[in-house]
Amino acid sequence: MASSSSLSLSQALLRPTPLPSSHQPSLRVSPSLRPSPSTAPLSLRRRAAHVRASVPVKTVEKATSDVTLVEKSVNTIRFLAIDAVEKANSGHPGLPMGCAPMGHVLYDEVMKYNPKNPKWFNRDRFVLSAGHGCMLQYALLHLAGFDSVKEEDLREFRQWGSRTPGHPENFETPGVEVTTGPLGQGIANAVGLALAEKHLAARFNKPDNEIVDHYTYAILGDGCQMEGIANEACSLAGHWGLGKLIAFYDDNHISIDGNTEIAFTESVDSRFEGLGWHVIWVKNGNNGYEDIRAAIEEAKSVKDKPTLIKVTTTIGYGSPNKANSYSVHGSALGAKEVDATRKNLGWPYEPFHVPEDVKKHWSRHTPEGAALEAEWNIKFAEYERKYKEEAAELKSIINGELPAGWEKALPTYTPESPADATRNLSQQNLNALAKVLPGLLGGSADLASSNMTLLKMFGDFQKDTPGERNVRFGVREHGMGAICNGIALHSPGLIPYCATFFVFTDYMRGAIRLSALSEAGVIYVMTHDSIGLGEDGPTHQPIEHLASFRAMPNILMLRPADGNETAGAYKVAVLNRKRPSILALSRQKLPNLPGSSIEGVEKGGYTISDNSTGNKPDVILIGTGSELEIAAKAAEDLRKEGKSVRVVSLVSWELFDEQSEAYKESVLPVAVSARVSIEAGSTFGWEKIVGAKGKAIGIDRFGASAPAGKIYKEFGITKEAVIAAAKELI
Amino acid sequence: MASSSSLSLSQALLRPTPLPSSHQPSLRVSPSLRPSPSTAPLSLRRRAAHVRASVPVKTVEKATSDVTLVEKSVNTIRFLAIDAVEKANSGHPGLPMGCAPMGHVLYDEVMKYNPKNPKWFNRDRFVLSAGHGCMLQYALLHLAGFDSVKEEDLREFRQWGSRTPGHPENFETPGVEVTTGPLGQGIANAVGLALAEKHLAARFNKPDNEIVDHYTYAILGDGCQMEGIANEACSLAGHWGLGKLIAFYDDNHISIDGNTEIAFTESVDSRFEGLGWHVIWVKNGNNGYEDIRAAIEEAKSVKDKPTLIKVTTTIGYGSPNKANSYSVHGSALGAKEVDATRKNLGWPYEPFHVPEDVKKHWSRHTPEGAALEAEWNIKFAEYERKYKEEAAELKSIINGELPAGWEKALPTYTPESPADATRNLSQQNLNALAKVLPGLLGGSADLASSNMTLLKMFGDFQKDTPGERNVRFGVREHGMGAICNGIALHSPGLIPYCATFFVFTDYMRGAIRLSALSEAGVIYVMTHDSIGLGEDGPTHQPIEHLASFRAMPNILMLRPADGNETAGAYKVAVLNRKRPSILALSRQKLPNLPGSSIEGVEKGGYTISDNSTGNKPDVILIGTGSELEIAAKAAEDLRKEGKSVRVVSLVSWELFDEQSEAYKESVLPVAVSARVSIEAGSTFGWEKIVGAKGKAIGIDRFGASAPAGKIYKEFGITKEAVIAAAKELI
Repeated sequence: MASSSSLSLSQALLRPTPLPSSHQPSLRVSPSLRPSPSTAPLSLRRRAAHVRASVPVKTVEKATSDVTLVEKSVNTIRFLAIDAVEKANSGHPGLPMGCAPMGHVLYDEVMKYNPKNPKWFNRDRFVLSAGHGCMLQYALLHLAGFDSVKEEDLREFRQWGSRTPGHPENFETPGVEVTTGPLGQGIANAVGLALAEKHLAARFNKPDNEIVDHYTYAILGDGCQMEGIANEACSLAGHWGLGKLIAFYDDNHISIDGNTEIAFTESVDSRFEGLGWHVIWVKNGNNGYEDIRAAIEEAKSVKDKPTLIKVTTTIGYGSPNKANSYSVHGSALGAKEVDATRKNLGWPYEPFHVPEDVKKHWSRHTPEGAALEAEWNIKFAEYERKYKEEAAELKSIINGELPAGWEKALPTYTPESPADATRNLSQQNLNALAKVLPGLLGGSADLASSNMTLLKMFGDFQKDTPGERNVRFGVREHGMGAICNGIALHSPGLIPYCATFFVFTDYMRGAIRLSALSEAGVIYVMTHDSIGLGEDGPTHQPIEHLASFRAMPNILMLRPADGNETAGAYKVAVLNRKRPSILALSRQKLPNLPGSSIEGVEKGGYTISDNSTGNKPDVILIGTGSELEIAAKAAEDLRKEGKSVRVVSLVSWELFDEQSEAYKESVLPVAVSARVSIEAGSTFGWEKIVGAKGKAIGIDRFGASAPAGKIYKEFGITKEAVIAAAKELI
Repeated sequence: MASSSSLSLSQALLRPTPLPSSHQPSLRVSPSLRPSPSTAPLSLRRRAAHVRASVPVKTVEKATSDVTLVEKSVNTIRFLAIDAVEKANSGHPGLPMGCAPMGHVLYDEVMKYNPKNPKWFNRDRFVLSAGHGCMLQYALLHLAGFDSVKEEDLREFRQWGSRTPGHPENFETPGVEVTTGPLGQGIANAVGLALAEKHLAARFNKPDNEIVDHYTYAILGDGCQMEGIANEACSLAGHWGLGKLIAFYDDNHISIDGNTEIAFTESVDSRFEGLGWHVIWVKNGNNGYEDIRAAIEEAKSVKDKPTLIKVTTTIGYGSPNKANSYSVHGSALGAKEVDATRKNLGWPYEPFHVPEDVKKHWSRHTPEGAALEAEWNIKFAEYERKYKEEAAELKSIINGELPAGWEKALPTYTPESPADATRNLSQQNLNALAKVLPGLLGGSADLASSNMTLLKMFGDFQKDTPGERNVRFGVREHGMGAICNGIALHSPGLIPYCATFFVFTDYMRGAIRLSALSEAGVIYVMTHDSIGLGEDGPTHQPIEHLASFRAMPNILMLRPADGNETAGAYKVAVLNRKRPSILALSRQKLPNLPGSSIEGVEKGGYTISDNSTGNKPDVILIGTGSELEIAAKAAEDLRKEGKSVRVVSLVSWELFDEQSEAYKESVLPVAVSARVSIEAGSTFGWEKIVGAKGKAIGIDRFGASAPAGKIYKEFGITKEAVIAAAKELI
């Protein structure tokens, strides 16, 4: 394969390449990437890679100058990483030095992207699952012409306010798709990205117009491979037959504690074959460029399975004294070893220098990327002309604009509506929303019939029915969360939801935290949210979970009490596209309470009933979720005894915190210190709400196995307890 | 193989079987279980199974009456499960009905145990990883004669206060080794149990006396198989060559959402072979008793690998209308289907009835178990005579008695001691303790050189060096935690510790919660405990983690500030054998503070300095960990300005909560409302300490990538901020 770029560039320039306006479809046709190469309108060099996919004949001849230039480019990547880590005196040079060859092939030869519009919809996605090696990605983005990583950004690696933080962060660096660093997350995100592509392609592609058509690439290391989340996600990728997911396994035999021999001697190949992947081994990842290229070709030719390309590399390649040792993994090489490496690799340049020929070689990606997007925009315009409805739907998924009036689909309830579990009410909402939100899709970790998450008008997203929207995650909570992060970050209009028992957020907390950090608006449908689940006992009963998420930044912890509040929770969740939501939902039936409302939920906390005047009730009873009913009943009794009682639903602490001081005072007046809260969970944190003089009724021990009513009674989560506490305080 | 038991029983009774005193070695020799069967003193039927292991000749003939009795026993198990679930109208009958045959073979024919002393040290361990099927285990314990599960207990299945809760709980039911239910945990616990056996056997066995010698069995289902934690732990089990771990995979093709085809189509066999396991397939698990027996034989003959016996079963076997469907997984069959099943399996008995011949058949386990223990006790007495020192050490591991004066090994520090990171101080403690605590062992999830967890006087626990104490977990946090739970619950004197970055408790929270619930005194060594880790950025910086564990029941969250506090944290952690401890430790250097003490840590919160009189300082500054230094420095400045200032270290909220009201008042007098706290983490929960009028300085957003000092400054975690807050309040 010719990797000379001047030809491509000149050819690309044979046609006018309109400046792509960011985020807006423009007017040119992209090369048809799959079937008949002869019909492709442009002979961009990049296309050659795709041609190879269907015509598996390897080009064996190669101009020496090309090889030299490739190696020079690869060494540029290595030294940009070395120099940035050295300047910061912090970071991970080992991976970029070892993975520079595959990185080069991917970003320079294989991937479709537009550096001037990192959000171009049909770009190939790349995930550095081994996120500590982020200097690899920063170097590649820099060479490829992304404005987010200029030389000054490389020089500011790991410094306050820079666009080159210590691990790849999508919210800091355009061009970075997802946030990685915690190992195993990235490959699971990549599965989500590939799922999204397969799903959208199935829904929107037409025989004459494959408008959705891109690959997802990932690099993962030994660390990612050891993490259970990676196995979960990769098992699903195999099950779903995600043929356009191509993962490079950086097989360097070194992890932080030393040689992988000490803890990781499994056969990754056998495991992945068992998981239903196609597995290829590139034995020389340090300079076997042709083998890397051929492996990608082969991977693309296998359309019904994801591919793992095991690439054996040397960590810290080029460093004469530190290569192939853990010492090069996570520390700067040191001035002396940097010098030795410069000598060893014949690199005479100053730190951060990109040689002119390398710069020139890479410079074509700006016009080429613009051309790619422009062509796709023409294709989209044609699509729009022929398939108006689908185009509008796809556009809303691409842009993330919610359809006008979508919120009218939310069901409403009155106190006369039948009592129901909020998990069932949740299903009513999901099914109502699925009709109006084209990007809503999701499912449960093998608890669909308990979590009540099936979308009744859709079938299952499966290998051969990828256009459907019910995703069956199996018992893989952590993988599920990370896959949903990938879906959410694929396109702004995709709204993934996922479900399990609330207590099993413990299994997926790593992924949930990354939803919060990376601004992925996943909706977590978490049912069986307290001791109210009864007989399954303490292993299944959440206690500390509400508190644990209230303490987490940038996430909404919502615990609705009835139908209207569940609808409100969904309204909030859908609107918060950059902040994930967790809905804690009951297994048990709950009545629809007078005074509950969608609008109330949007404020986080609000008064559902009050018989006082002048904003000075004798006592305020505060509840959430299933215990709001108990508070309301206690209030009734107290009012019969002549007390003035306010009942407050505190469905989301985060939203309430964001309200004006005046509003908060109107709900929880400072002057009223007689406050009783009731929630079937840890009282930790409730002092903030009830104050030093108030009383928080809750559970500060593990649960128990018994019918729910019995546990409530034994644990004192009762109306009587609320009344007694209130009387003490009044 | 003859499964008639009368012979065994009579033979067992040929010798006097002293009543085993609970938890105390008694005086008889157990059959040598491995090498030359001819030298074994007793021909217990159980021994035959072991003979088979080394003499792989299958007995093909079998008396019809035996088969009938076995089937009757198996149906007894099935109906005990059916009846208990039916009576509770809650529970999971499907697994017990399908797994009754393997359960029967294990508990009636294969396993060594003493029902009257469930804690007998050398018992075989059994873990029901698919914990929802607990009625299988309860039925087996009942038949085997464990006092914990009598008929009345079966009748109280899933009821308040019963010994038969909804999932197996070691703290409720003697005979249950670990707490399962959350899927995947059990198999990982089993890896820990098998590790413990292999480790102790290597340390204590002598050529003439294999005093430690038992197997670990587990049953796991499709759900466990899908969980990442299971893959993590099983990868390690293969790596370590845990030959005495034998896991049954209940391959019934059904999970809650339906057929496993919808989400789980990987080849488990290939995956496990890749993980280094020996894999056997029993195609007919419903009544292929001989195949199950032969598989166990084969498994035992493979000594260098753990074995997975895939047993294909029918979930809900025997139920004519519900077998092989998800409907039998997690609900009572219903009266009609129970009747139909009774007819189908020819079961004329009343609910909970155990036929006399079945009862008689199983009754031998009481004398046999007593004999097994008695023999082992003789063996131990011989061991003690010949190997006095080792015997004393092993005894302390068996009994859990800490060596007298162990705490004198804890290092102490003065303000003149050099500043150091608490992670380094932690290593000093670990290494000091390893010299005096024979049961201390553990390691890190591939961060030993960052977490500072290596025991310098020991090598690595590896396949061929299992007597060593440094465990290399690889990047497998969740598996690590669950393996440590297994180690802790193997023997009271084993004290496992494990380590990663504090933020990655998110990956292992499921296991940590089970440490807390199941009273496994694991020590979690969690370093890099705040933004103080610097450049790695927000993915690596804990924020909400301290709060999230303070809210969790039965766990100690300790954040020591310096050398003495780190030693105090270890003292507390070692003493709390039924309550796990998490030590949050700094990456950065911290000075040794005047006033810090081990005794103070034991109280959870204490005054480290104060220039006030009469328990009424102008202001109280409260810090934890690395921020206690900031509080102390702020106090110095404020005192220079004439203020009376108390500085309080709140190293463990849980321990402080447990102190007397008088003590708490002496540290945090109610009358002093001017309180400022400083902690580089979420302020969630601090209202309880500082009160409505106080001020909590903390971080309620995600962190950032930059040098630590810069982040502290930008986030306002500074002396200046404390001083300013204090002045506002005074």
